[in-house]
Amino acid sequence: MNWANRMKAISIAVAAGLSCMHAVAQAPVSVSPPVAKPSYSELLAASKPGDWRALDLENTLYMDIPQGRVIIEVSAAYAPAHAANIRALVREKYFDGLTILRSQDNYVVQWGDPDEKNPRAMKQGKSSLAPEFTRSIDDKLPFTKLPDVDGYAPEVGFSNGFPVGRNPKTNQTWLAHCYGMVGAGRDNADTSGSGAELYAVTGHAPRHLDRNITLLGRVVQGMPLLSSLPRGTGNLGFYEKPEQRVTIKSVRLAADVPTAERTNLEVIRTDTPLFTSLVEALRNRGGTWYKVPAGHIELCNVMLAVRAVRP
Amino acid sequence: MNWANRMKAISIAVAAGLSCMHAVAQAPVSVSPPVAKPSYSELLAASKPGDWRALDLENTLYMDIPQGRVIIEVSAAYAPAHAANIRALVREKYFDGLTILRSQDNYVVQWGDPDEKNPRAMKQGKSSLAPEFTRSIDDKLPFTKLPDVDGYAPEVGFSNGFPVGRNPKTNQTWLAHCYGMVGAGRDNADTSGSGAELYAVTGHAPRHLDRNITLLGRVVQGMPLLSSLPRGTGNLGFYEKPEQRVTIKSVRLAADVPTAERTNLEVIRTDTPLFTSLVEALRNRGGTWYKVPAGHIELCNVMLAVRAVRP
Repeated sequence: MNWANRMKAISIAVAAGLSCMHAVAQAPVSVSPPVAKPSYSELLAASKPGDWRALDLENTLYMDIPQGRVIIEVSAAYAPAHAANIRALVREKYFDGLTILRSQDNYVVQWGDPDEKNPRAMKQGKSSLAPEFTRSIDDKLPFTKLPDVDGYAPEVGFSNGFPVGRNPKTNQTWLAHCYGMVGAGRDNADTSGSGAELYAVTGHAPRHLDRNITLLGRVVQGMPLLSSLPRGTGNLGFYEKPEQRVTIKSVRLAADVPTAERTNLEVIRTDTPLFTSLVEALRNRGGTWYKVPAGHIELCNVMLAVRAVRP
Repeated sequence: MNWANRMKAISIAVAAGLSCMHAVAQAPVSVSPPVAKPSYSELLAASKPGDWRALDLENTLYMDIPQGRVIIEVSAAYAPAHAANIRALVREKYFDGLTILRSQDNYVVQWGDPDEKNPRAMKQGKSSLAPEFTRSIDDKLPFTKLPDVDGYAPEVGFSNGFPVGRNPKTNQTWLAHCYGMVGAGRDNADTSGSGAELYAVTGHAPRHLDRNITLLGRVVQGMPLLSSLPRGTGNLGFYEKPEQRVTIKSVRLAADVPTAERTNLEVIRTDTPLFTSLVEALRNRGGTWYKVPAGHIELCNVMLAVRAVRP
């Protein structure tokens, strides 16, 4: 297999703005050339500035670990109390020096305070919040419905860049546990989470957790730093030895970081005709590599493009 | 959060035989105690020997890399020609000294011959095979259907421990791209794969690849060794520098390995009443942590237990 073909060896997943070429079928001379469907990559390459949005700096976290920076977009719309609590905890530097304490294969990484005997005190931040497992549907909340059936929710789609489920009968909507989504770890009591302990999905989407725990954000950059962490050898993937944990240097709000230190990102809007076309390009992939288009797109298989921009 | 509760901090995923406890609801004195539904872990702990099966040593690969051993069960039923070709390649030591050359986040790791200019010659093994993307449904092929709808296939379920899709109308069935599944990398031509270059799914199941490429096996042990590999910085996650690639010490068939060096595993059978109960326990999780049972199980969220046994 030569290198050019190797580049297409399995298929092409576009993330973080990488662009790839799909070969277009060549028509015989005597027949009108088929209209080539634009691929996901081609559509993205032809996007306009209005197809993208900047992150809300008050709801963007920079988690700096030795391996690099993990950037999390927090959803103030779906988890307002948790978003506010995380802002409070971040501003009192609660997370600085805490650790990534768990990495369970095909599931999650989790970070927070590893010290049970002498837990770090909170000042403005709270250690317990009312659950924000779902919220009511609001016409002011954007929602781009996906066309296909989903097993875990009557409707699924995207809301301001976040994957969501919806039940019109109960008038409830909720964030969905796709890869990279971030939630508030909790015990049995539904008020036992607060955002002081967080997890990110690093494997196949555990959609059965939807509506059972407060999801509050999404990793928009740096996911490989989390997903490649060695798995913990303890039960549930907890690290058994303190030296195995990854120390968090700091968590800061992008709004509080000097402009020169910011990572300027844009994420694809999910309420545009382009986004609808991107979804369709994923539902039915053209080109020469695919032999059988799926005719279906699953919520957590929709790729959400992120790109770096000049400040 | 104390350590006992931390152990249940998000939820409990049982893999490789880890057992976990779910708290059972306490009923008030004046009402008959509810019948506690057994949890996935409790069901597994109560399994009988007949609920498990040994691996077929002629179709079990040991891929030994510096980080440890990756064990792959190959499906001779769904990919007989590829299984035979892999046996041939393994027996001529084709893979020994080749490398893991790609790790793309939320997608795959891939391994094979990195040398384009001087590719390793094959003796008995072939570099090209007819595609085995699907096969015909055969009553002799075991199939345990899952009860719920799937977006990518009219029916889904398990066949001898492998996740499969089925279309009764076309009489076709195929392996599904769940986490840990292994396939034969190929170029655009559907005959360009052969098993000489393999990949394993390390992220959210890319079900859109089903029926488009030959899946041929499943990682039954050692997945963390692959999923935690640093992601490649090149396009599609290819490692840009030779020193970043992971050298494969050897790939051997379990049948050819001296008994003392074997890793003796059993995997849960998928054609038993216990398996049906395990699936139901995942569809509707009881206990005190879950507040809303999903009432649904997705093919790739079914956990397939593996355990070590004495030889």
